[in-house]
Amino acid sequence: MFKLNSSQPETTCDRRALFETPLFQALPQKYTGVLNAACTQISFRKNETLMVQNDPADWFYFILSGWVKLYRETQDGNEAVVELVGTNSFIGENAFLEGSMYASDATAAEDTVALRLPCSLLREAIANCHGAANVMLQMYANKHQRLTRELESLKLQGTPQRIGCFLLRECKGKPAGNLAVKLPYGKSLIAAQLGMQGETFSRALAKLKKATDVTVKGGQVCVPNITKLAEFVCAGCSNEYPCKDLVPPKHL
Amino acid sequence: MFKLNSSQPETTCDRRALFETPLFQALPQKYTGVLNAACTQISFRKNETLMVQNDPADWFYFILSGWVKLYRETQDGNEAVVELVGTNSFIGENAFLEGSMYASDATAAEDTVALRLPCSLLREAIANCHGAANVMLQMYANKHQRLTRELESLKLQGTPQRIGCFLLRECKGKPAGNLAVKLPYGKSLIAAQLGMQGETFSRALAKLKKATDVTVKGGQVCVPNITKLAEFVCAGCSNEYPCKDLVPPKHL
Repeated sequence: MFKLNSSQPETTCDRRALFETPLFQALPQKYTGVLNAACTQISFRKNETLMVQNDPADWFYFILSGWVKLYRETQDGNEAVVELVGTNSFIGENAFLEGSMYASDATAAEDTVALRLPCSLLREAIANCHGAANVMLQMYANKHQRLTRELESLKLQGTPQRIGCFLLRECKGKPAGNLAVKLPYGKSLIAAQLGMQGETFSRALAKLKKATDVTVKGGQVCVPNITKLAEFVCAGCSNEYPCKDLVPPKHL
Repeated sequence: MFKLNSSQPETTCDRRALFETPLFQALPQKYTGVLNAACTQISFRKNETLMVQNDPADWFYFILSGWVKLYRETQDGNEAVVELVGTNSFIGENAFLEGSMYASDATAAEDTVALRLPCSLLREAIANCHGAANVMLQMYANKHQRLTRELESLKLQGTPQRIGCFLLRECKGKPAGNLAVKLPYGKSLIAAQLGMQGETFSRALAKLKKATDVTVKGGQVCVPNITKLAEFVCAGCSNEYPCKDLVPPKHL
């Protein structure tokens, strides 16, 4: 299912990002010491499984590199992608608050390296450390803002607007002008994340291109006029670009 | 916009439900005393406003009776219903963690009575009371489970399944057999909550009736065979009826 990362020896550097997260920074040394001792670095090849929905949540992960797909499989065999999670993010860290079972499946969307830690230790740390509970509250608040925005988008934005919104968010932080953006992962994953079948995605992308002059070639996107794209996308949304929840504090 | 509830004098009973919530139970008397002193009972007529999206979040509310619609208005004038919130629930209590602005509009979907309290006092109480922070974490965890389930449903379930899922959840706790359920609010609100236009809702409801023998007359729903309804609905979902997140602990 996975292998301990013996071929690529772990370096101190690999754990630094974890211990620099606000969550770990808020923990007293007593808990970071125990968590550090129980932490293991693991490599997952593309399509390997990290978590299975409804399995007991023994472990949570901190992703060092790669992308992990969180998804749910319906009884009739379809797949709802909940989220794509990338570098310097946690997955499964909130499972102990949600029935101690994994809320979704998680597989590596590409080769991924992650740190694995026991949920029981995090539960104990949060129960005993008010500062860490407050950080976790803020993490949930950020998740809540993201999910509410996504729900709004699914309920009201058309499919070309939803793709446009995804691209706009990728443009974030880049200087205005003729923007070139690299897609973070493949188009089929983006389609799944946006809740579209492949064919719907292709048709919607064609409409988006026509309406906003955006071009997509391979994994490269060119946005010649970000204002035009934003006007098209944000007409179907209650926020204006750049929306306030676009950049949550790092790691939160 | 609203009126202080002078015609219906407030009784001790009205505040009891608030102070019996896990959140308020977790607060030391120092904070419940201050919150109690700052608490006001307010009546809202149908369509009156409690919160405006992006306004400074000065107040949160605890609903004593009625229904409140949380929604967002897009720039081109459409309305995305985020949630319908009923008796013994909070709204706006998490605003201080989400930029201290209201994340959505809130209006009374029917005549509503609510207790209004200052967000600043709750923020202070959570910052100083680990037990209350833990309760708030659990409240967020429950919201997160609900939103994730709703996202899955919007991405994969067909419109008849989504209506069926809503009805199934209303059946919860009733004995099996020929079930009669009263809709909690009007069909147009249910349609909006499920992200459907009125016409789509009517067509989907007709398909649902045909597939599961459910009947809907006025506000009354009759479910002659709950197993048949559950099979139809849950085929498009990763959970089986009754799903685990159906009944979060009271008030959470």
